[in-house]
Amino acid sequence: MSDASLCFHSAVDLARMIRGKKVSAVEVMEAHLAQIARINPKVNAIVTMADEGQLLDQAAQADAAVAKGAETGPLHGLPLGVKDLVLTAGMRTTYGSRIYKDLVPGHDGLIVEREKAAGAIIVGKTNTPEFGAGGQTFNEVFGVTPNPYDLGKTCGGSSGGSAVALACGMLPLADGSDFGGSLRNPAAFCNVVGMRPSPGRVPVWPAKLGWFTLSVQGPMARTVGDLALYFSAIAGPDARAPIAIAEPPSLFAQPLQRDFKGVRIAWSRDLGYLPVDPVITQVCDAQRAVFEQLGCQVEDAHPDLQGASDVFKTLRAWRFALERGEELKEYRHLMKDTVIWNTEQGFKLDGPTVAKAEARRTEFYHRMREFLEDYEYLVLPCNPIPPFPVEQKTVTEIGGVKMATYVDAGALRHVITIVGNPAISVPCGFTPEGLPVGLQIVGRHQKDFELLQIAHAFEQATQFHLRRPPVVD
Amino acid sequence: MSDASLCFHSAVDLARMIRGKKVSAVEVMEAHLAQIARINPKVNAIVTMADEGQLLDQAAQADAAVAKGAETGPLHGLPLGVKDLVLTAGMRTTYGSRIYKDLVPGHDGLIVEREKAAGAIIVGKTNTPEFGAGGQTFNEVFGVTPNPYDLGKTCGGSSGGSAVALACGMLPLADGSDFGGSLRNPAAFCNVVGMRPSPGRVPVWPAKLGWFTLSVQGPMARTVGDLALYFSAIAGPDARAPIAIAEPPSLFAQPLQRDFKGVRIAWSRDLGYLPVDPVITQVCDAQRAVFEQLGCQVEDAHPDLQGASDVFKTLRAWRFALERGEELKEYRHLMKDTVIWNTEQGFKLDGPTVAKAEARRTEFYHRMREFLEDYEYLVLPCNPIPPFPVEQKTVTEIGGVKMATYVDAGALRHVITIVGNPAISVPCGFTPEGLPVGLQIVGRHQKDFELLQIAHAFEQATQFHLRRPPVVD
Repeated sequence: MSDASLCFHSAVDLARMIRGKKVSAVEVMEAHLAQIARINPKVNAIVTMADEGQLLDQAAQADAAVAKGAETGPLHGLPLGVKDLVLTAGMRTTYGSRIYKDLVPGHDGLIVEREKAAGAIIVGKTNTPEFGAGGQTFNEVFGVTPNPYDLGKTCGGSSGGSAVALACGMLPLADGSDFGGSLRNPAAFCNVVGMRPSPGRVPVWPAKLGWFTLSVQGPMARTVGDLALYFSAIAGPDARAPIAIAEPPSLFAQPLQRDFKGVRIAWSRDLGYLPVDPVITQVCDAQRAVFEQLGCQVEDAHPDLQGASDVFKTLRAWRFALERGEELKEYRHLMKDTVIWNTEQGFKLDGPTVAKAEARRTEFYHRMREFLEDYEYLVLPCNPIPPFPVEQKTVTEIGGVKMATYVDAGALRHVITIVGNPAISVPCGFTPEGLPVGLQIVGRHQKDFELLQIAHAFEQATQFHLRRPPVVD
Repeated sequence: MSDASLCFHSAVDLARMIRGKKVSAVEVMEAHLAQIARINPKVNAIVTMADEGQLLDQAAQADAAVAKGAETGPLHGLPLGVKDLVLTAGMRTTYGSRIYKDLVPGHDGLIVEREKAAGAIIVGKTNTPEFGAGGQTFNEVFGVTPNPYDLGKTCGGSSGGSAVALACGMLPLADGSDFGGSLRNPAAFCNVVGMRPSPGRVPVWPAKLGWFTLSVQGPMARTVGDLALYFSAIAGPDARAPIAIAEPPSLFAQPLQRDFKGVRIAWSRDLGYLPVDPVITQVCDAQRAVFEQLGCQVEDAHPDLQGASDVFKTLRAWRFALERGEELKEYRHLMKDTVIWNTEQGFKLDGPTVAKAEARRTEFYHRMREFLEDYEYLVLPCNPIPPFPVEQKTVTEIGGVKMATYVDAGALRHVITIVGNPAISVPCGFTPEGLPVGLQIVGRHQKDFELLQIAHAFEQATQFHLRRPPVVD
């Protein structure tokens, strides 16, 4: 059993099979390496690979541990991809930037430490836009990562490489990060699941701003059950992240099954003010009944989040100036326009403007909190548009409405970033052209596990995740 | 049993006695009201009183609940004071400002909700400097709160009224808040205990900046055991505070006793760079051996926190501009100089300066974290000076070193605010003039309970808390 079919097993199954000696970690690794060799040249999702011999050695060690009856972590023997914004010891980490094209870090980021400690084997780095900026995965170091459902379209971003690697069965698990929606957007475009956890749920280190809650790291996978498994390895407190949530990762090892009878769900096509392409509305609306079939009460409702984009743009620019300010002085010629623009926007901010943005953010937080006293979940589209042409670098228009900046097309996601709630994108169906559409579900404050539960129920009822991208055939 | 001696029982004892019907809540209330009537005119600590008849009615209701065998909270029947910066429904809340001298809020702050829910009876509001600014408790609404150990000296601040009310046996429990040290400074000056909890340990609401971690609310008491009891009522998550720590309040209901054999303690007279009056060093040094007697290994050591004051001053000014900016436009004539200055400092800040301060703060956090991998606690003076003359509005000099701003005298405390660790001030002895000195103990990140444990052991070994202020005799 070392054929390609192994590559579309869930991570939960693979981990169980490895632990139960139904398959060896070496067979699993070999199958994934073969899939990568076959598919990755077409999709450019994994941009740096570990040495194959070493990967097979690690897999053999994983098997030896199982044979000895050693204690194994939840991800024991699973191949795993790391977004190229996250530090990996001894493995090139470029941030998608020419400035760092030859950087080889001396240590792992915290999430990678945990992935390894849980038994995962780091196969390689997944592609990202330069410094993770933008909902389109391309950069001057590695080029573009197209959509496996249509190679002429974008896979989204910024965790685009991870989403594509998952969709193509090249990896069962991959991580990502999310500021304006980077764990959700590519998941939606690639028919996989990506969850923006509550800030602090997956502690981030190193981080220049230890208390900054808009930028998070988190898991991506093909199924919600796999996400939960992944969380059970990467969630939980660590003193290196001052905002880390105290709850233990075992929270995520509980059963996802739950009775949703009577649970109130707010359904919103557009948050009442954002442009959304009719095809997205159509595809999402077609699944509304699924929640009713689960026993939920679904109502048209949304919190008033108008203005939250302004807050997002202010805080995004503020952080860009800090993160990219020094580089801009020296390496402007190596940086893309949108990054330069965003950094310079940050230079122009004054302190009171930033403080007012933080205060408005708090107001939006409470608005969302009060809204979710009446409803347990808010459901809305993840993307206002289907995957767009891969040549197009930014979204300039949605349904006839011009976007003011490259950031605006992400409003459906980044206003959720602002309120701070956990949010997941789950496969919701396909456009008539066969392009994936993602449904964004938002949970209550820090109720990450409860969010996984509803997403799991939706996934089990719809099974869209089973439809593989044409590129793998 | 309704005499004044009841007023110096611990809150733990009083709660137990009320619950066990050894004393009635009415007797406890009567004793405290008598003490307030006798002492408060001399110390001006409680500046707004609830109606006495209503207080006695509430106490009678508490007794009735006990008689019925109803479930009671941890603070059942205990008189409690609320700092005048914290909202109290139907009870005047002035912030020590003439602008708000007639403000009667429509609802309680979250901490007050919890105090009431735990069975405490809110007796009144305790004095604070205008908007809590400064380590001296005076304002134009209520005047000054002197030190009960010497009425010619200050009680410190900004939770000065609470500290004095406790020291004088007028209340067994009172809350406070801490930005630059306001729960610690007056505790040190008044021979009581005050703890700055980890941000989010005691969730704060309402708050203009929901994610701001420098300003916290917390408990004050006469004993560490009473603080733990108080925490068991006011700690724990609440969705209204996005940074609330998930751990349940029951954490604080555990026994405080612990074996400290081999525990490593870093002892610092001055953090290596701050001016400290020799009398403070002398009084603190005299108690160093206590930790050794507890079994600890005590070493001279400190983290390098030079520069943390700059970070503190930047972030303090940034927040002042937000919090007081609007008021300054309209009510400048009603605001004190230091508040005006601090607010105007904030107006001058640019965004990148604030971002860099946040980044430096993260560096200091990690410096402290790494330091406390080698040591479990850092022990240092709470105040660099003993209580100073009550006529003196700010500290301008320490041991011959001029202070650059009114904020600088608090550096021993506010650099701890910057790193974010929990810190407590416990009674450490007296100057030759009989003025109290507080020892500041700093715990590891979010290890609030472990901090209470060492403070409890120190208190039990030293018993300085038993020395009452002359004003009560």
